[in-house]
Amino acid sequence: MSQTAADTSVGIVEPQLFRHPASFLLQCGEALPGFELVYETYGTPDAAMSNAVLVCHALSGNHHAAGYHSGSDERPGWWDACIGPGKPIDTNRFFVVCPNNLGGCHGSTGPLSINPDTGEPYGPDFPKVTVRDWVRAQVLLADHLGIRRFAAVVGGSLGGMQAMQWAIDEPDRIGAAVLIAAAAKLSAQNIAFNEIARQAILSDPQFHGGHYRSRGTNPDLGLMLARMVGHVTYLSDDGMRRKFGREIKSGDIRLGRDVQFQVESYLHYQGRSFSKRFDANTYLLMTYALDYFDPAAEYDDDLVAALSGTRCDFCIISFSSDWRFSAARSKEISDALITARRNVVSCVIESDQGHDAFLLPIPRYFDVLGGYFDRLARETTGAS
Amino acid sequence: MSQTAADTSVGIVEPQLFRHPASFLLQCGEALPGFELVYETYGTPDAAMSNAVLVCHALSGNHHAAGYHSGSDERPGWWDACIGPGKPIDTNRFFVVCPNNLGGCHGSTGPLSINPDTGEPYGPDFPKVTVRDWVRAQVLLADHLGIRRFAAVVGGSLGGMQAMQWAIDEPDRIGAAVLIAAAAKLSAQNIAFNEIARQAILSDPQFHGGHYRSRGTNPDLGLMLARMVGHVTYLSDDGMRRKFGREIKSGDIRLGRDVQFQVESYLHYQGRSFSKRFDANTYLLMTYALDYFDPAAEYDDDLVAALSGTRCDFCIISFSSDWRFSAARSKEISDALITARRNVVSCVIESDQGHDAFLLPIPRYFDVLGGYFDRLARETTGAS
Repeated sequence: MSQTAADTSVGIVEPQLFRHPASFLLQCGEALPGFELVYETYGTPDAAMSNAVLVCHALSGNHHAAGYHSGSDERPGWWDACIGPGKPIDTNRFFVVCPNNLGGCHGSTGPLSINPDTGEPYGPDFPKVTVRDWVRAQVLLADHLGIRRFAAVVGGSLGGMQAMQWAIDEPDRIGAAVLIAAAAKLSAQNIAFNEIARQAILSDPQFHGGHYRSRGTNPDLGLMLARMVGHVTYLSDDGMRRKFGREIKSGDIRLGRDVQFQVESYLHYQGRSFSKRFDANTYLLMTYALDYFDPAAEYDDDLVAALSGTRCDFCIISFSSDWRFSAARSKEISDALITARRNVVSCVIESDQGHDAFLLPIPRYFDVLGGYFDRLARETTGAS
Repeated sequence: MSQTAADTSVGIVEPQLFRHPASFLLQCGEALPGFELVYETYGTPDAAMSNAVLVCHALSGNHHAAGYHSGSDERPGWWDACIGPGKPIDTNRFFVVCPNNLGGCHGSTGPLSINPDTGEPYGPDFPKVTVRDWVRAQVLLADHLGIRRFAAVVGGSLGGMQAMQWAIDEPDRIGAAVLIAAAAKLSAQNIAFNEIARQAILSDPQFHGGHYRSRGTNPDLGLMLARMVGHVTYLSDDGMRRKFGREIKSGDIRLGRDVQFQVESYLHYQGRSFSKRFDANTYLLMTYALDYFDPAAEYDDDLVAALSGTRCDFCIISFSSDWRFSAARSKEISDALITARRNVVSCVIESDQGHDAFLLPIPRYFDVLGGYFDRLARETTGAS
């Protein structure tokens, strides 16, 4: 943690563990005999516990959204730019909760956990989880924390889908749903990219049908490829042009051989580093949850009908250069919410940073998000 | 061949072989002791051999652009919709030549050929080839055929890059360059997708450093993944939505498990079929040639300067939903050509079919292309 960051950082944080001791039936029909969620909190609950905000993470995220785990940590949590004293989600006003989702690989019950029935890690036998399952597990966490109602549930990408499912499934327990760079369902192109990532993992001979841990190995190359595919699709063509262009890392292009472009080197690094910190079975689970998310499907593909039982307010943010979850997808949600007579604020942020923009401190984005939460703080909690 | 196709088909065609018996120095500094190009021709040369058109193929194409190899062939050549009697490239008027490029895997000298120095297939030791090398080899083929000057050199994607290089390197031997869905150089995003495809092949344990043939195996899974990545990027989000949507092939999405979407099944089929018909070492070579293509690099990145020595006319066609080689990239070429005082016709075709549109018989596209070739026929060859 740098000295200059200290004023606006939540500081050193410690992950906590919530244990649900009873059987938990999943949407797929299988039951977990119980589960644990690792989570972090930032800020302080008010007396009425009316200032709680749930932050939902995306595909490769986890519970460590803000602050540092030790004084020697070089990097803070994944959304530290957004969460902290005076930041858009202001921890001087809000009590922020961020869990690692069920099926995750950073401390919550998932494929790396021991299956009590066998005494071995679940591995590939961990049941498929859905966005709806995540919401139900998060409700149990809220009960545990004494949070009757979240002032807001917020998330980007797959996190935004969780916020949407909260609005649908728990209309009494959510004041506002903030959906950033999300979609009401994945397109065929989205599914195709997820399937390519899955195939990269499944076809890695080190995957061993998901039993790589018991073989003492890991599908590093498959995970690396999966992440490279993901990463390219989270950036925009223009953003990559600005960042990398055709810069050459090594070799002589005039000879037309042995050239490595900077962008290749960057992707290799990103892929390798991801393969060291993420579990392949979890990656598969998360992409399936993304693909299967489609709340309108139960309503004859009528998104307005799917959203007509919601009662919270909505804030829908998208980014102009995001082609994985484009502004058009966010507009579909906003349009359906308007038709369903919901109170919805929507905004397309100009940016050349693609889908990844949702993680970045883009001034106009933080103006919009911070302004929305400021209004929430004033209206919901009576804070000034 | 179907009966109804007979009137507008070039019919049964037979590949021919051109042998260059002398040493051929490549841009990379290595020399081939000689080479062969397999090619096909359609139509008849006029007395002055003034009606020849060179068709350059793209990444996964070959010399079989039109017609059928036998009466029982189910599928014609890859650009049969465009080449034939009365078609946009009208074989009643033009003598069309289409070679398989050097380094290819369909009959021209490439990684599958025997290296005379070793008596074994070149495999991964086949030298890197560039777009400029291809043009030089095609010039030798033209000499062999007695073609002093092509009325036009035409190609889509990587084929368009060859047409551009022809205009630069052989200004006296080309009447018109027709560049379809091309770019003056690849963007960082393009290179990134190519590198992902390469990594998929390189990390397949069946690749054996490129010596898979001598091991009696083939990197099928790597090639399949590479093709899946390529294929998705050649389609558009809208086109895939129209074609596949979220149609389910098998499984029950309400249970959130074991679902296969149609788009996944389609991609698997495309990938598997590609891995049976394409050589992995050739795929690597072709993607490197794409990445390295950048004629402006020798001119301080000044595309106008790179094109200022050209003398032919140009036709530049792009497609509205092509995000791999977008209309903006074609506009860069047109703009540079206009500044360089060239005669350039340019057109963006509305289509939701992405980069693949260049292979498809889209009416407005064929109007533009056919109209351009009609004018060429009238002006260049004096035909009516």
